[in-house]
Amino acid sequence: MTTIPKRLQRRPLQPAANLFRESGIAKSPTHGRRYSDQAVPLPEKALIAQIRRLAKPHRRRQADRSVRPTRRVVLTEIGDDCAVLRLPPGQESLVTTDFTLEGIHFRRDWHPPESVGHRCLARGLSDIAAMGGEPVAAFLSLALPRDLSQAWVGGFARSLIRLGEKFGVTLAGGDTAESPNGILADIIAVGSAPKGKAVLRSGARPGDRIFVSGELGGSAAAVFEMRTKQMKSKPKNKLNPRDYRRHFYPEPRIEVGRILREKGLATAMIDTSDGLSTDLAHLCEQSGVGAELDAALIPRARVGKPAREVDLDLALHGGEDYELLFTARPGKRVPARIAGVALTRIGQVTRQRLILLRDLKGIAYELEPRGWQYFQR
Amino acid sequence: MTTIPKRLQRRPLQPAANLFRESGIAKSPTHGRRYSDQAVPLPEKALIAQIRRLAKPHRRRQADRSVRPTRRVVLTEIGDDCAVLRLPPGQESLVTTDFTLEGIHFRRDWHPPESVGHRCLARGLSDIAAMGGEPVAAFLSLALPRDLSQAWVGGFARSLIRLGEKFGVTLAGGDTAESPNGILADIIAVGSAPKGKAVLRSGARPGDRIFVSGELGGSAAAVFEMRTKQMKSKPKNKLNPRDYRRHFYPEPRIEVGRILREKGLATAMIDTSDGLSTDLAHLCEQSGVGAELDAALIPRARVGKPAREVDLDLALHGGEDYELLFTARPGKRVPARIAGVALTRIGQVTRQRLILLRDLKGIAYELEPRGWQYFQR
Repeated sequence: MTTIPKRLQRRPLQPAANLFRESGIAKSPTHGRRYSDQAVPLPEKALIAQIRRLAKPHRRRQADRSVRPTRRVVLTEIGDDCAVLRLPPGQESLVTTDFTLEGIHFRRDWHPPESVGHRCLARGLSDIAAMGGEPVAAFLSLALPRDLSQAWVGGFARSLIRLGEKFGVTLAGGDTAESPNGILADIIAVGSAPKGKAVLRSGARPGDRIFVSGELGGSAAAVFEMRTKQMKSKPKNKLNPRDYRRHFYPEPRIEVGRILREKGLATAMIDTSDGLSTDLAHLCEQSGVGAELDAALIPRARVGKPAREVDLDLALHGGEDYELLFTARPGKRVPARIAGVALTRIGQVTRQRLILLRDLKGIAYELEPRGWQYFQR
Repeated sequence: MTTIPKRLQRRPLQPAANLFRESGIAKSPTHGRRYSDQAVPLPEKALIAQIRRLAKPHRRRQADRSVRPTRRVVLTEIGDDCAVLRLPPGQESLVTTDFTLEGIHFRRDWHPPESVGHRCLARGLSDIAAMGGEPVAAFLSLALPRDLSQAWVGGFARSLIRLGEKFGVTLAGGDTAESPNGILADIIAVGSAPKGKAVLRSGARPGDRIFVSGELGGSAAAVFEMRTKQMKSKPKNKLNPRDYRRHFYPEPRIEVGRILREKGLATAMIDTSDGLSTDLAHLCEQSGVGAELDAALIPRARVGKPAREVDLDLALHGGEDYELLFTARPGKRVPARIAGVALTRIGQVTRQRLILLRDLKGIAYELEPRGWQYFQR
């Protein structure tokens, strides 16, 4: 038998998790004081129950809308050791994971919980879109500090689930934990594509034209604005999410990606999560090619109130726009719009493994990947 | 155009991630000073390259060993927006996610990086085992503080990948980020099981016998020891992992789970990640039944040097043993060992929705779920 020292015998037995916490390494700011009504601690069971309750009506509502025939891919409800997924025959699964960390990907004083939940899932769905896939399920690993309000969690989860519903995605499971520091989320998106048809980053060939969906730089412009307000010590450094929807509520380009794949138009594809310069570098590296961009052609977002066009630098290097960057063979006709989203030709693929930008004065220089480089993908 | 205020114009343009960081909310302890050789910052690209390099030889080595015919499930290498997975026909996929957070699930001063990497993946594989599944792929979301050494990351990743190799699991992708605070990992394990054959938590019926694999309480005993040493302010509060393998290097019971499923022996199954009392409560809740345990039958781990049997309380409530807890119909013969692992009958399923423990003196009382309750699953 393990001998229990006297000084420990007086305490009630602590399970492993509490042993960790009691040892003082994971103290939350409210450790040791009572919680107010505003900040109710969320024991795991209650948290899972809350998320499960929010996720449940999903199938019914989805069926009501009948956007498309409901394929029942997720066979289990939240609450088993694993979720069981069954894809239709002839389909491959696509899997991607994306962190959403407080202080890195969002700030609680800048982003309402609804925006954080939306962006959390949008990141994953955008990766599915970039493969030309159809999203089917999501898993959420969520670690919360003890002092977080249930209202925050509710806003976050409802918004995430609402975005999922829009695209027929079931929240199928995940993990919950107490966070030692700040809100930590990891979204796992699962999609499907017909066998061998998923669009990779590696299919670009010299001579292919380069296209981008929508407009660029709108998300980074919002961050820029918030930072500027903060530096000027404006007491209200929040932006109105409605004026900066591309940042707060980006739209994953699922339909655009799927149609590009179905029509065999995209030879290589990636989403612009890191910023055009960095994402194009990823695509070129995987394809073993270079590229030439024309600055005058790059579609720049219009944001704010009154709406203004963003700087070229933000369009080139600002991340988190979640548009699709893809290449197409020279002979193929690419429509000007798909599913209401503009597709703009911005350059072409070259043999020389170098990315060149022809600037607004017509001078070409090497475009360095200056997007979200450090760690963040 | 977004107007750039004068005071910002002097700075080089910062991409979104840096804007966040520069604003001072995500300062790491080493922010602003130069990194020593011991603590080289790991930009995302280098980190991905390191993990990719470690993960790559996997297939070859696995093929050499030919433990079983290599099923090529993962069709892509790390580096696309999603990984593409193709399961053999007639198989369903099993998906589970599990956090490994510094300060909650491990401590850097208690756990060597090799143990953290091993336990990180073992948590996921154990969930696959609990469904009777065959693991096929893993995804790793990993956020690291800037001051972490490459040696730590190497030890962590090598150990995780080594455990994966043992079970034919490919590290197929994931996400990397800078962590605002401490090491944060989320493992996603993907497995497969024949259609409709995965063992759920919900299949237990009154009269079924309850079994557990291996021994319980060994992992919690290690935490208990480390905490005791710390309270006594012993300068060396580390344990020798070899004397506490169940805590530092738990063995996911993949083969036991698969054979139980193949032979149709387990009617309901769960892994003991939270502790017997809590995991049994989960299983009973999902099955709509109760249970009666016999304290004298519960197999207690022997740990430490010299090896001692753990307290009953640790065997009942200590988590993270990653053994399998399952039920079997009364008529079915359950072997005493499967794949070298002992299977012990510890009680039976009852109609009354209550969990009773007959203690060592033969007195029955209600067993409250006192395992890892708060948040952690």
